[in-house]
Amino acid sequence: MSPAQIELPDPAPAPPEPVLAPALALRRVAIDTWRENVAYLHRDCAVYRAEGFQALSKIEVHANGRHILATVNVVDDTTIVSCQELGLSEDAFAQLGVQDGHTAYVSQAEPAASMAALFRKIDGERLDRDDFHAIVHDIASHHYSKIELTAFVVACNRAELDREEVYFLTEAMVASGRKLDWHEPLVVDKHCIGGIPGNRTSMLVVPIVAAHGMLCPKTSSRAITSPAGTADTMAVLANVELPFAQLEQIVRDHRGCLAWGGTADLSPADDVLISVERPLSIDSPGQMVASILSKKIAAGSTHLVLDIPIGPTAKVRSMPEAQRLRRLFEYVAGRMHIALDVVITDGRQPIGSGIGPVLEARDVMRVLQNDPRAPIDLRQKALRLAGRLIECDPDVRGGDGFAIARDILDSGRALARMNAIIAAQGTRNFDHNRPELGPLTFELRAAGSGVVAGIDNFQIARVARLAGAPKVPGAGVDLFRKLGDVVAAGDVLYRVHAGYPADLEFARLASTRSSGFTIGRADEVPHVFVEF
Amino acid sequence: MSPAQIELPDPAPAPPEPVLAPALALRRVAIDTWRENVAYLHRDCAVYRAEGFQALSKIEVHANGRHILATVNVVDDTTIVSCQELGLSEDAFAQLGVQDGHTAYVSQAEPAASMAALFRKIDGERLDRDDFHAIVHDIASHHYSKIELTAFVVACNRAELDREEVYFLTEAMVASGRKLDWHEPLVVDKHCIGGIPGNRTSMLVVPIVAAHGMLCPKTSSRAITSPAGTADTMAVLANVELPFAQLEQIVRDHRGCLAWGGTADLSPADDVLISVERPLSIDSPGQMVASILSKKIAAGSTHLVLDIPIGPTAKVRSMPEAQRLRRLFEYVAGRMHIALDVVITDGRQPIGSGIGPVLEARDVMRVLQNDPRAPIDLRQKALRLAGRLIECDPDVRGGDGFAIARDILDSGRALARMNAIIAAQGTRNFDHNRPELGPLTFELRAAGSGVVAGIDNFQIARVARLAGAPKVPGAGVDLFRKLGDVVAAGDVLYRVHAGYPADLEFARLASTRSSGFTIGRADEVPHVFVEF
Repeated sequence: MSPAQIELPDPAPAPPEPVLAPALALRRVAIDTWRENVAYLHRDCAVYRAEGFQALSKIEVHANGRHILATVNVVDDTTIVSCQELGLSEDAFAQLGVQDGHTAYVSQAEPAASMAALFRKIDGERLDRDDFHAIVHDIASHHYSKIELTAFVVACNRAELDREEVYFLTEAMVASGRKLDWHEPLVVDKHCIGGIPGNRTSMLVVPIVAAHGMLCPKTSSRAITSPAGTADTMAVLANVELPFAQLEQIVRDHRGCLAWGGTADLSPADDVLISVERPLSIDSPGQMVASILSKKIAAGSTHLVLDIPIGPTAKVRSMPEAQRLRRLFEYVAGRMHIALDVVITDGRQPIGSGIGPVLEARDVMRVLQNDPRAPIDLRQKALRLAGRLIECDPDVRGGDGFAIARDILDSGRALARMNAIIAAQGTRNFDHNRPELGPLTFELRAAGSGVVAGIDNFQIARVARLAGAPKVPGAGVDLFRKLGDVVAAGDVLYRVHAGYPADLEFARLASTRSSGFTIGRADEVPHVFVEF
Repeated sequence: MSPAQIELPDPAPAPPEPVLAPALALRRVAIDTWRENVAYLHRDCAVYRAEGFQALSKIEVHANGRHILATVNVVDDTTIVSCQELGLSEDAFAQLGVQDGHTAYVSQAEPAASMAALFRKIDGERLDRDDFHAIVHDIASHHYSKIELTAFVVACNRAELDREEVYFLTEAMVASGRKLDWHEPLVVDKHCIGGIPGNRTSMLVVPIVAAHGMLCPKTSSRAITSPAGTADTMAVLANVELPFAQLEQIVRDHRGCLAWGGTADLSPADDVLISVERPLSIDSPGQMVASILSKKIAAGSTHLVLDIPIGPTAKVRSMPEAQRLRRLFEYVAGRMHIALDVVITDGRQPIGSGIGPVLEARDVMRVLQNDPRAPIDLRQKALRLAGRLIECDPDVRGGDGFAIARDILDSGRALARMNAIIAAQGTRNFDHNRPELGPLTFELRAAGSGVVAGIDNFQIARVARLAGAPKVPGAGVDLFRKLGDVVAAGDVLYRVHAGYPADLEFARLASTRSSGFTIGRADEVPHVFVEF
């Protein structure tokens, strides 16, 4: 296989010349402001006074032929910065690539070039391709403040983007970062829109399709609002933070990988947008489609199987809604020339038993090892998705994919491939028979008898997060009952694992308020609408 | 007159008990983060590690029986904070009212109680009275992050609030702060929706109506996006930052005042919302109505004359738009029981000659002194607005207000009243014959001959701001020509004053790109639609 070729995005336009302000000496201020560049200027600094900066003004800092944008904080303590210094928060300082004391110039930041387009979107206008490219370029270059980012996200929420605009947004997001080219006609991937705890099918699908010989260079995200992302769970088994050259070598050797995508600079605007979408729980169809497809296209995928779970507490709650979302995905995928196969799946409850990185890694390894304790629902779903991907292979007959996938799994070839990938990425110590679970536990028991008629995905995820997942890998929820199971009063519904007393109490409080389980009659179990 | 009675808003609910975390020693970190509380925690601090805080997490800090919310910044330098300390930015530290070293507890901040209502608004739902009260209470208590504030403002933009919701929002904003009661049946005020440079009628209307004997306790804002607010301009002549007791005494003695409203805690949520509306240039009808009426009602006004300028570069650009806005103001004013008189005025160009605090103070004093150099448009508009207010007096016949106002102005009684108010607030040194204008100047000359057919309010304001107004009081634009004037090529259209070379260059650059003046034919001067 020829090495992956990387297309870099267009270079940014030349920075404006710094204006008139005298030089300052740069100083690294050891404060981590997380993705927000902060510049610390002393209140008596001549530049601060002459330029009329205010606290929270945005300024441009020029040094070493580079320039960054930063927000001003005003300092009254010369031990933090003196009047001749410009302090920068850690990330900001690192971006300039200089030593302490290096000369810097500052100037008032011009408003981002796309501000007029943003204001038009806030006013409800339809934007064109150039507008989206300008906005996304400014976002990826960190030219937007949190306020401007939020305004863009909220203004694009609901039905405020038509499908042509979603296409423009997707295209602009791909253009904002690197684009990988694997030089193969078939590069496959799978993705789920999320919302279902325990849904770790990627860690099964990748070794299965790679064992079939298909190229599946999977990069995954860490959890944002969920108790575990694929990258968090894979990190229990192997190193997931890999330099690109090593990742490429692993893919060349094993046809697949399971790495964290955060270092790859793929669709970087997406990461910036997520930082405001998350606290607002915004997940509009247009932004979801642009986010998912831009990442996959930038990663060089040619074929994608997309999983849309549907259920009363899933992201998508009705079949008409799922069909609308499917059509939007298909339209944009068509315009972007990526082959897309949408699969609508059962999202009525969590998949598997464990919720949390270690618990989910345990379930995955049990499936791969054909362990009798393996969760059947996780195994079946992974086989179906892998089967769909295998049918992208022109040599496979339609309908044969599932049997091929099952054969790869049952024969141990999937496990062997997974172990090879784990070894190549760097093995972590993990024994699925003795997973290191959080030592502090409590059990949630059924108050009455009946049939499990509902499991609330949100509440189960919430309890697992409060228990410490994914930050504490061994924390989470271990489900003992699933939909349709008969329970007697006092039966354990799930066990919660935590690493810290405070976490355990938060989780206990939440699960006491609402367990997430509904015990009722068998005919109250919601119907499933699945299109496999 | 009996003293003004102040109603305090309902006390906030009791803070939740701090949870489990060990104590830290408070430390004032001399960084001014402007309206955003920042907590500095060392990366190796036990609390930081155990609680799973992240950079930008929101935490509650409890000390001295008080609690505040703050955003976490992570520190790697023990000279800023040690592992046993909790650093707080200057404002945040001051809010707790303790000394360095005082014991504090921290806990994860619960999301604001109104978050569910906010999410429903983002999803486009109509909110009810309780929702608005909960949201505005959280905003006024600084429980919202910038992201959440922006989401609220953008979600309420355009036609997303119906008039009943605007009423609920207004009512909630009044309830969020103090409410003054002057114990008189008639408390008058005037307000302009803004957007017209030089429009300093309040400084004429207040002395005229006060001289007529009406109670007019005017509190004004400083400029937000304009080159001067009434408070900035009045500050050239007198002290405007007055403790409430002094303000009350002045009003008792002189029936009027012209003070800055920022210290009065009237509709405090409005000030918080403005901090995100301003950078987004959002000024939707619903938010404008709630902002203006809540401030006036909280200040105890019973009668309000509202000025809506209309013109091609005014905030309102057509008569149907002005009428829609007028109806919304009238509806909400009716529900809130304040008598409202809406006046639609000529907003085709700036009012008066000077744009900037000193230049505008000069114009105002020339009008009061019946100086032949006084701008006629400023005089006429002020007389008309004052006349409208005077007709709120039950002893004045409809139609007589203008003549009464003119008599008060021409006789020198308005000047005498203004001088008395200035003396009472604290006189500043100002000679309107020798105003201290910015010493650096340039003149913008007409490129061709013709008639002034357009003056762009936005561009003139922009040039004045770049020149340094209102921060540099003597900076701004002095207009030599107005709409309809005949000009020859090379005639001076306006002179720009600045205090600093950098400002002058910014202003020169902007006015070279676009002067703000259109020179054309007499028949190209836009028509005026005025409802006086």
